[in-house]
Amino acid sequence: MAFKLYYWDGIQGRGEFIRLALEDAGADYIDVARMSGKGGGTDTMLEIMGSRSEAEIPFAPPFLQDGDLVISHVANILFYLGPKLGLAPQQDRLRYRANGLQLTITDFVAEVHDTHHPISTSLYYEDQKTEAKARSAAFIKDRIPKFLGYFERVLQQNPFGASHMVGNSLSYVDLSLFQIIEGLTYAFPNAMRDHERQYPGQAALHASVRSRPNIAGYLSSPRRLAFNEDGIFRHYSELDAVR
Amino acid sequence: MAFKLYYWDGIQGRGEFIRLALEDAGADYIDVARMSGKGGGTDTMLEIMGSRSEAEIPFAPPFLQDGDLVISHVANILFYLGPKLGLAPQQDRLRYRANGLQLTITDFVAEVHDTHHPISTSLYYEDQKTEAKARSAAFIKDRIPKFLGYFERVLQQNPFGASHMVGNSLSYVDLSLFQIIEGLTYAFPNAMRDHERQYPGQAALHASVRSRPNIAGYLSSPRRLAFNEDGIFRHYSELDAVR
Repeated sequence: MAFKLYYWDGIQGRGEFIRLALEDAGADYIDVARMSGKGGGTDTMLEIMGSRSEAEIPFAPPFLQDGDLVISHVANILFYLGPKLGLAPQQDRLRYRANGLQLTITDFVAEVHDTHHPISTSLYYEDQKTEAKARSAAFIKDRIPKFLGYFERVLQQNPFGASHMVGNSLSYVDLSLFQIIEGLTYAFPNAMRDHERQYPGQAALHASVRSRPNIAGYLSSPRRLAFNEDGIFRHYSELDAVR
Repeated sequence: MAFKLYYWDGIQGRGEFIRLALEDAGADYIDVARMSGKGGGTDTMLEIMGSRSEAEIPFAPPFLQDGDLVISHVANILFYLGPKLGLAPQQDRLRYRANGLQLTITDFVAEVHDTHHPISTSLYYEDQKTEAKARSAAFIKDRIPKFLGYFERVLQQNPFGASHMVGNSLSYVDLSLFQIIEGLTYAFPNAMRDHERQYPGQAALHASVRSRPNIAGYLSSPRRLAFNEDGIFRHYSELDAVR
């Protein structure tokens, strides 16, 4: 039976970390909110979230349905899916390591979101632009180097080699890091101009993920939405570093 | 062998979610950064984080060492510890549910932190006080009701009864929710004034956790630090609702 992925239509957002894993594995899945007709659409998703009787009510998308099991939060979904898709390490200890790395990525993604929404998600970007500039400046100066510097150390210190974040073969963490590099390069092209030289391990990993047949096929398909200014990674030139 | 918990000395912070689980279970653990002498202190913690050779380098505290296994991030540590401490549901599907709930708590805690640091963690609170007031106002208006409203629904819709967030017995999620209520009541006493009436399930859970013998013993021990203005939950009266 196909996995059912629930995420907002129209943006890559947090759902994209799940899509990349499903696509790389060639898994059978339905992107429910993007599907038209019976059982599809955003309303179907909101109905599950708004249930006043079900036990498993997600706080927010993305969530995944596998049979009658409902799993929410990106890291939790990937922890569940990873072994099923052949995208998690075999050893338990490395699975906890993968989960820890994915949770660092989760924190980073939340900080990316807050560069354009530092005051409130209920306000428009235009109404918090001044604060967004201050937060983005600090993000570019302090946080990008802190996170990418950390991920680079993780790659370089992987005892199985610097091709992967954890273990000796591709995992969902590698796919998520690919998406981080994609997103940052879209949102902050000036700040990221020199990243291939600064973070060579991540540049190599990014290139290697991009050339995987299923990923390459996905990226050139209509299923891969373009980045846009409704998602997590947004390009506002006034928030980027000065070129 | 005792678990080793690594977290910043002097604050409850994110480490407290782990401490509550260890304390409730009466587990043998060492709070490394708070321990003086050989093998203790903050320097020992920073040395592990700063290693240029080890594979398992945490991005940030808290992290847990169990033998030679190192696990980072609150939700990941609790997912690992829960079954060992008798604080996780028996069924796999409920463990994923517990993990999803814990990750919602994680997100909420990050938002609590950003009420006093909306622009940058590298700046002092005083240097972002204006933005902190705006973010806190939005947090009190939109985010507290959204998260606590959700947790209340989860309790009330738990098919095993409203005494627990998941399953039919106490789990680490219940302990973490207790800490959320403790922290919010400390940080935003005016905003939380009416919470017992608004969220009766959480009030009952909070009282029931507080009266557990090991928790009561812990809370009155010197191991439980007081909330303070270096932690996640900070009381700045100018950020609270007007009484």
